Amino acid sequence: MKRAIIALTTDFGVGSPYVAQMKGVLLSASTDLVVVDVAHDLPAYDVRAAELSLRGTAFAFPVGAVHLVVVDPGVGGARRCIAVLSRGCYFVGPDNGVLGAIASAKDAVTVVLDRPALHRAPTAPTFHGRDIFAPVAVELALGVPLTDVGTQITDPAPSSLPAPVPRGAAIHGTTLGSDRFGNLTTNIPSSWLGEVEVLGRRLRVVRTYAEAPAGELVALAGSDGYVELAKREASAAEELGAHGTEVVCRRA
Amino acid sequence: MKRAIIALTTDFGVGSPYVAQMKGVLLSASTDLVVVDVAHDLPAYDVRAAELSLRGTAFAFPVGAVHLVVVDPGVGGARRCIAVLSRGCYFVGPDNGVLGAIASAKDAVTVVLDRPALHRAPTAPTFHGRDIFAPVAVELALGVPLTDVGTQITDPAPSSLPAPVPRGAAIHGTTLGSDRFGNLTTNIPSSWLGEVEVLGRRLRVVRTYAEAPAGELVALAGSDGYVELAKREASAAEELGAHGTEVVCRRA
Amino acid sequence: MKRAIIALTTDFGVGSPYVAQMKGVLLSASTDLVVVDVAHDLPAYDVRAAELSLRGTAFAFPVGAVHLVVVDPGVGGARRCIAVLSRGCYFVGPDNGVLGAIASAKDAVTVVLDRPALHRAPTAPTFHGRDIFAPVAVELALGVPLTDVGTQITDPAPSSLPAPVPRGAAIHGTTLGSDRFGNLTTNIPSSWLGEVEVLGRRLRVVRTYAEAPAGELVALAGSDGYVELAKREASAAEELGAHGTEVVCRRA
Repeated sequence: MKRAIIALTTDFGVGSPYVAQMKGVLLSASTDLVVVDVAHDLPAYDVRAAELSLRGTAFAFPVGAVHLVVVDPGVGGARRCIAVLSRGCYFVGPDNGVLGAIASAKDAVTVVLDRPALHRAPTAPTFHGRDIFAPVAVELALGVPLTDVGTQITDPAPSSLPAPVPRGAAIHGTTLGSDRFGNLTTNIPSSWLGEVEVLGRRLRVVRTYAEAPAGELVALAGSDGYVELAKREASAAEELGAHGTEVVCRRA
Repeated sequence: MKRAIIALTTDFGVGSPYVAQMKGVLLSASTDLVVVDVAHDLPAYDVRAAELSLRGTAFAFPVGAVHLVVVDPGVGGARRCIAVLSRGCYFVGPDNGVLGAIASAKDAVTVVLDRPALHRAPTAPTFHGRDIFAPVAVELALGVPLTDVGTQITDPAPSSLPAPVPRGAAIHGTTLGSDRFGNLTTNIPSSWLGEVEVLGRRLRVVRTYAEAPAGELVALAGSDGYVELAKREASAAEELGAHGTEVVCRRA
Repeated sequence: MKRAIIALTTDFGVGSPYVAQMKGVLLSASTDLVVVDVAHDLPAYDVRAAELSLRGTAFAFPVGAVHLVVVDPGVGGARRCIAVLSRGCYFVGPDNGVLGAIASAKDAVTVVLDRPALHRAPTAPTFHGRDIFAPVAVELALGVPLTDVGTQITDPAPSSLPAPVPRGAAIHGTTLGSDRFGNLTTNIPSSWLGEVEVLGRRLRVVRTYAEAPAGELVALAGSDGYVELAKREASAAEELGAHGTEVVCRRA
């Protein structure tokens, strides 16, 4: 049997009752849903960090999967609630930029969630994750067309991740964040991986962590398709900071 | 297909082999069970914190769901093992107060788990979660009546959460704990949300976090049905402490 | 219906996009797989800690379960990728010792994963968890015979956990690690639980934590079959350190 997938990305904290309450809404609709915990310990209110996490997971699941993304500092305020369809996958969350990169893809269709009849009543003004986003995610997972859960819009909030800037033959990007091992990802696609310069130093380019001399900052093609900075069994993030270091690449 | 839900609430720690061992018992009985991790990082031995977590999740799942609650400092000692049925949901755990509020509901039926034939043999005296509670949870999830897993009792251990105290037109309650954003929940139902006083100060009552002036301690109806204290994009818990602050409400 | 179980043990960190990407590979193959998060917050690169975690969970799941174990500091280097079948359960991971104890069992069969056609293409040299181990885990979970996913080898890397040493009527072992409550497990089977000596002190042997006098270091039969050191509602690990304390046992 093919079961529908709903993937959860929040800043509620691992073990938060809020997460369980959202799962309760999902499983009350159907116990055949496959509910996947992607991340719940994203930094509180950090839309940028959530968007970076989503960059790595958005298209990891099969077509038809629904991402429920709730990092929502403005809940109950003026920001809209939206759903996006891109490359066969659905994304439901606040219109605060967390879905900005996805909604800006050429193929993406975005709707504003303006059908209260589909939401949970009464709708708590402080918990749209449970009362608006989760019920809409269920609808989409069970096959309801995107345009039946809301009205199309063309001005979703833009991504808060910086885009790299081409200058002559080079591209100037930046580190965006690190994994648990201190490897730093960037906003530069790996296709640019010829010469790499960081803080005025030319970095050695390797294929695997194992090739790097111990303690040397190196560059490599990350498993997510972006240039990555690493130190073998050490932390590039400790040397360069969590994010915001300029990285300059030239094609080989 | 309607599958049975078993929701896990423990203080074993996220990633503990104890959690995996309990899941092994559940899935050995049936791989069609929906096993939900509610919380595993509750403070060790903290029955009060576990009961507060359960207040937010107990009835979040559909009728028939079984909560397996293992915060059990007295494991292997004199405390009883119990199961409770209330509002169509089941709760299995130690009789140390963690199920106290649920077992004290008018409709609740409680049994002591005195049928060793239903337990895992040999039963480790230090791990009733795996050897007694998990097998009984499976029985209940698969449809065995409550009174077939134990003998009814009428004196379950009381809740360790304080009840609010009416005084004249007011109710005097207390903060019970905070979420990851520093919002403090209380033991006062939101229906009391007229005037709110904390530490002698009258608080502004708002409908959403977004309405609160930055940095001001405000009160609102929490998404769980209780009065909540919050600071917009800041932490009420940092100002007032984790729990135990008196809150006085008067109806509007 | 009997569904196949795939259990995940990694050092990627709870909430890591790498975990979600592995789940994406698994669920893309079949949404009927039961994916269990065993542990993702193992200390980074710590093969010994991962092997200890696996000691507690390896045979907790029903026959046919597949463990996907990715603690892999040498990814992309010379270490081999292997799969092991023992006691009806499968284990897939790097050949760096993390599967050493399991592969050394008399019944165990080990293969090296040398069939690139079964792997995900292109295979990222820095993420064999997603591109080699996960696809092979799917094959095994869905019933492909072990010897169809690789070529048998007889020299898997040995366990990195120390074995206890018999001396006369005694056995000399060591503490291996603690749970969240500070209880220390050892490498001495509980069948040796007669006399117990630690740092020259003879310890009281109890049956449950509740029997221990408060604050006294005691020994007991752990729920995992090994001698355990504990302090009632306190931490044995705080007194003795995380691991490496000699423990001497004599049978009763």
